[in-house]
Amino acid sequence: MIIIMKNTASQEQIDALKKEFETMGMKIHFSQGMNTTLMGLVGDTTRIDIDKVASLDIVEEVKRIQEPYKKANRKFHPQDTVVDVNGVKIGGGNFQVIAGPCSVETPEQICEVANSVKASGAGLLRGGAFKPRTSPYAFQGLKGEGIRLLLEAKKCTGLPIVTEIMSYEDIDLFEDVDVIQIGARNMQNFELLKRVGRLNKPILLKRGLSSTIEEFLMSAEYIMAEGNENVILCERGIRTFETKTRNTLDLSAVPLLKKLSHLPVIIDPSHATGIPWMVEPMTLAAIAAGADGVMIEVHNDPPKALCDGAQSLRLNQFADLMKKVEKTTAFFKTL
Amino acid sequence: MIIIMKNTASQEQIDALKKEFETMGMKIHFSQGMNTTLMGLVGDTTRIDIDKVASLDIVEEVKRIQEPYKKANRKFHPQDTVVDVNGVKIGGGNFQVIAGPCSVETPEQICEVANSVKASGAGLLRGGAFKPRTSPYAFQGLKGEGIRLLLEAKKCTGLPIVTEIMSYEDIDLFEDVDVIQIGARNMQNFELLKRVGRLNKPILLKRGLSSTIEEFLMSAEYIMAEGNENVILCERGIRTFETKTRNTLDLSAVPLLKKLSHLPVIIDPSHATGIPWMVEPMTLAAIAAGADGVMIEVHNDPPKALCDGAQSLRLNQFADLMKKVEKTTAFFKTL
Amino acid sequence: MIIIMKNTASQEQIDALKKEFETMGMKIHFSQGMNTTLMGLVGDTTRIDIDKVASLDIVEEVKRIQEPYKKANRKFHPQDTVVDVNGVKIGGGNFQVIAGPCSVETPEQICEVANSVKASGAGLLRGGAFKPRTSPYAFQGLKGEGIRLLLEAKKCTGLPIVTEIMSYEDIDLFEDVDVIQIGARNMQNFELLKRVGRLNKPILLKRGLSSTIEEFLMSAEYIMAEGNENVILCERGIRTFETKTRNTLDLSAVPLLKKLSHLPVIIDPSHATGIPWMVEPMTLAAIAAGADGVMIEVHNDPPKALCDGAQSLRLNQFADLMKKVEKTTAFFKTL
Amino acid sequence: MIIIMKNTASQEQIDALKKEFETMGMKIHFSQGMNTTLMGLVGDTTRIDIDKVASLDIVEEVKRIQEPYKKANRKFHPQDTVVDVNGVKIGGGNFQVIAGPCSVETPEQICEVANSVKASGAGLLRGGAFKPRTSPYAFQGLKGEGIRLLLEAKKCTGLPIVTEIMSYEDIDLFEDVDVIQIGARNMQNFELLKRVGRLNKPILLKRGLSSTIEEFLMSAEYIMAEGNENVILCERGIRTFETKTRNTLDLSAVPLLKKLSHLPVIIDPSHATGIPWMVEPMTLAAIAAGADGVMIEVHNDPPKALCDGAQSLRLNQFADLMKKVEKTTAFFKTL
Repeated sequence: MIIIMKNTASQEQIDALKKEFETMGMKIHFSQGMNTTLMGLVGDTTRIDIDKVASLDIVEEVKRIQEPYKKANRKFHPQDTVVDVNGVKIGGGNFQVIAGPCSVETPEQICEVANSVKASGAGLLRGGAFKPRTSPYAFQGLKGEGIRLLLEAKKCTGLPIVTEIMSYEDIDLFEDVDVIQIGARNMQNFELLKRVGRLNKPILLKRGLSSTIEEFLMSAEYIMAEGNENVILCERGIRTFETKTRNTLDLSAVPLLKKLSHLPVIIDPSHATGIPWMVEPMTLAAIAAGADGVMIEVHNDPPKALCDGAQSLRLNQFADLMKKVEKTTAFFKTL
Repeated sequence: MIIIMKNTASQEQIDALKKEFETMGMKIHFSQGMNTTLMGLVGDTTRIDIDKVASLDIVEEVKRIQEPYKKANRKFHPQDTVVDVNGVKIGGGNFQVIAGPCSVETPEQICEVANSVKASGAGLLRGGAFKPRTSPYAFQGLKGEGIRLLLEAKKCTGLPIVTEIMSYEDIDLFEDVDVIQIGARNMQNFELLKRVGRLNKPILLKRGLSSTIEEFLMSAEYIMAEGNENVILCERGIRTFETKTRNTLDLSAVPLLKKLSHLPVIIDPSHATGIPWMVEPMTLAAIAAGADGVMIEVHNDPPKALCDGAQSLRLNQFADLMKKVEKTTAFFKTL
Repeated sequence: MIIIMKNTASQEQIDALKKEFETMGMKIHFSQGMNTTLMGLVGDTTRIDIDKVASLDIVEEVKRIQEPYKKANRKFHPQDTVVDVNGVKIGGGNFQVIAGPCSVETPEQICEVANSVKASGAGLLRGGAFKPRTSPYAFQGLKGEGIRLLLEAKKCTGLPIVTEIMSYEDIDLFEDVDVIQIGARNMQNFELLKRVGRLNKPILLKRGLSSTIEEFLMSAEYIMAEGNENVILCERGIRTFETKTRNTLDLSAVPLLKKLSHLPVIIDPSHATGIPWMVEPMTLAAIAAGADGVMIEVHNDPPKALCDGAQSLRLNQFADLMKKVEKTTAFFKTL
Repeated sequence: MIIIMKNTASQEQIDALKKEFETMGMKIHFSQGMNTTLMGLVGDTTRIDIDKVASLDIVEEVKRIQEPYKKANRKFHPQDTVVDVNGVKIGGGNFQVIAGPCSVETPEQICEVANSVKASGAGLLRGGAFKPRTSPYAFQGLKGEGIRLLLEAKKCTGLPIVTEIMSYEDIDLFEDVDVIQIGARNMQNFELLKRVGRLNKPILLKRGLSSTIEEFLMSAEYIMAEGNENVILCERGIRTFETKTRNTLDLSAVPLLKKLSHLPVIIDPSHATGIPWMVEPMTLAAIAAGADGVMIEVHNDPPKALCDGAQSLRLNQFADLMKKVEKTTAFFKTL
């Protein structure tokens, strides 16, 4: 960490700051040859509150050299983390497709979708039981009943299940859930992150709509600092000025996150684009960019063909996509 | 609500959709003179899930005519809401300054600040006990002890206190807190919103970093729909590409929110800009734009003048600002 | 085009507006069954100034059904446009790599790079002669001399050349340039667009930093409306809040632009990311997403290995990448 | 300027870089006490191309201590610049209102507006002759004829006129124009900036939609570096995710620009918000924030009251606003 001092800082103030850092176990070096005094800190600077230092009256600016995250940092953990979900592996060369409906609705729906996506090659089943909705008047999900239906679908198919938690008070309902999802809107719900960090269960953490890559990794660090290192990172689109797509999929986040961190990285093209025909090109692009998986919304074709979410793929569309996914992952393994 | 149907929609599908809306109590009108079929809905459309309708296979686009919020909507509540905090009123012509330190640190600190800001004219005392921090390794606040210190400061000065809740599990600690703050990162923590919506206590709701005005009002609606109509809206800067200020204060949100809603609207120039000398011009600008209050970080001048947050105003700077605030609010009342 | 009228609009005003549209050759349909009057326009609405209509006192909102671009619109031109640059084809299944240095510097540099990228498989040579720089004190390019050197490199290698124009006053220098590039900062320099629209030469149009997809296509339309239909669209990163990459590559723009338009679409991973090791994954992802080409910065390895732009690939890195590009484009042709 | 070297940089490479900077007249200081080598540069670093240095293989990061702009920098020009437009002064305590229609349409229109805004207290007349339009099919302005009408209005009223140039080829038409406006879309049309920098005429420079404060000042520097120091900066809204307002007015840019630069700063609330009733609160807020002026769209009330831009104020609305503007500027002078 390098601290650029203000010209107005007195020697007494600089000495006091130096002493404070030394009591934290840092080694301090100065550089005073220029018209600015620089203070260099060597040691475990993740414990230093950069915002607080930056806000000191005598400090012009602070520059981290080391990343503020440790557990999520590839520097200290060069091998890829492989998250093992009841034998289904994600990361380290294991590409997985997580598929299922936006919301769990009926036993028939979830069972039909589960059987079909399994047959097509999906490795995990997703389905929303607790639904974060912008409006308090919108359908909020089947909640406990939704999880019960997911667990039945798991029993039929053997597919591990992924579903979102919105409040830790509901944790008992998630006992048999295989992967707990933290949604984009809760990415900085720090108390929830800490709580799931004490579980012995993989966490799928979605990037917030306006979260930087560094903030995203710091949220993973919140979970990991409590002991749970089974975190899957999921890029699901960021908020920009563009309105033609629901959000803007930041696909460059995939290689970047994999460079900075050892955690598996997946993308959610359904939520990122909000447009079903864009799921295929963005899924193939994600494979090419090095992603460890994708999470895709799939629904069954109801007889009345009326109320299908157009963001979702139909079962046969998903089956077609999976054939291309298999060929494409195989191709890139040999490239 | 106007629904633009796709050209590919069959009459059968359109009829089925019409029936569905009619069972929800809507009146339906069609316009088929153009090359597109439009379906117009009359009734309480706040109950309709616009995203779901938009995602139907047969729907090209949906356009709301009515706002999706009711309780927060000025149309149905033309008078300004005045939030009364133990006799201290906000809104409806009552301008209030909420002042205090970023974090509560020691009894001496909070007491000195509380006495001083009261003398200068602040109406409420703020102070962070639970601190949302990007890093799990950063100081997370004094928590319960911080609230205890705030309550002591309240006893000395009589100032009502405002402090942030991060998890509903801590609610017992907030029993004597006068205003509960929901921070920007929790603006769409819907479970927390519902819970504080059942309290009989004013809620200060901060706008999320990438939240639209409509999403902000929908989050207020979450609280109000549960019964708690004492919501204070706080614009605290949005995330943009600009890096010279911490965030970009969206001051146009003030007249806009006040037009759309009857709730009081305040701004937080300290967090929005992150720069102490910008607090004064943005506070005066907020008054000119019609805000009902401001929330300002103030700290005492510690003997060693070392660790003061540079984002905060010192006690004397705050006193000077308050003189201008008084004159300026008086001026605009007569304009 | 659907116009939602304000409730305050008088019949007289509505009639007057109707008459105005009818004199423009539009057919008008009304829908008055709801609490809102809708006016539907059928005809060539590209000639209607939507902003002006939207700003009328009696208009609540305007909604286009048709896209505002015609010449660039795939609806009216279903086949892919293939831009032929002296026999080198881009689009319609022809993938091209445009490679070369950020700035043309010396005859040796540009010749060595040109020979090497040709040997590696590049189809066109790029090089900056006029350089748009944020600072007036920064190197602004070799200008006319830079173009002269590019033309020499073209002579040696036979590679067609692509270079940026910044002002139409310099057009004489571009007589033998094969593709004229309009940079992101000039994407809405409408006078320049009109001027190059009168040329008989392909134009490579870069998307502006905060340009929407629709604005981008409207800028292409400016060029095409003047008669020049040989436009290549280039996504080069948009400006977001993220700071780890120079810009955010919007890769979903590729399938979206190709759906909306028949024009070839390429990406510039070098400028979008600003990070050399990200060029490879984003290039492969672009192929997977359906792009018609990429534009990559490449430099020669100077003996002193000092001043190389780290954003650029070295010659051998580019050669390695091209092998993967060939295999990947071949793979996706068979998928 | 501080350069943080990569750990992989050899001593030979560092020495070579040092020599290069020394030949540019810089003094170099090293700090090698930490695990990183820092190179500090003292001298006129505006001439150093920070992007190029940052992109060197041996450089980790570069940090400017000095701003990259000189002529626009308040550090080297502490007094406010007062731009004198034929006796009408802007800046240094002189607040001016520039008013007029979006587009010049007819002699009657521009004359009526000019007479009325003059009577209400406007100091300058604005009017669009060349109109930058997203669509090539939209009305592009009366061009030369529009300027002729503006000059007639100037003759009647004595008000100096402000109008936008889009291409330097039209410069002859601007001979008698008092202030030349560079629009947001041309803020980084560097060739145009250089050209107007050689004129002896005030330039009103609008901030680009996604331009940072620093880029904005660098564009002013382009003009000033050519000799023309009469630049008026105009904040007109930036592009964000919010859609309720046309753009997001960044009012904090006013105090920030005035701190960093000596140039006068005005705002354009009409374009920033796109909503006429928001012009008043944002104008008053701009005065409170320290702006040197505002630019407001005003139209006359045509008999048919049909085609008025709703973004514009009517003449009587403008007259009412001007009374408040006068009182408010008077109030803040005494505060």
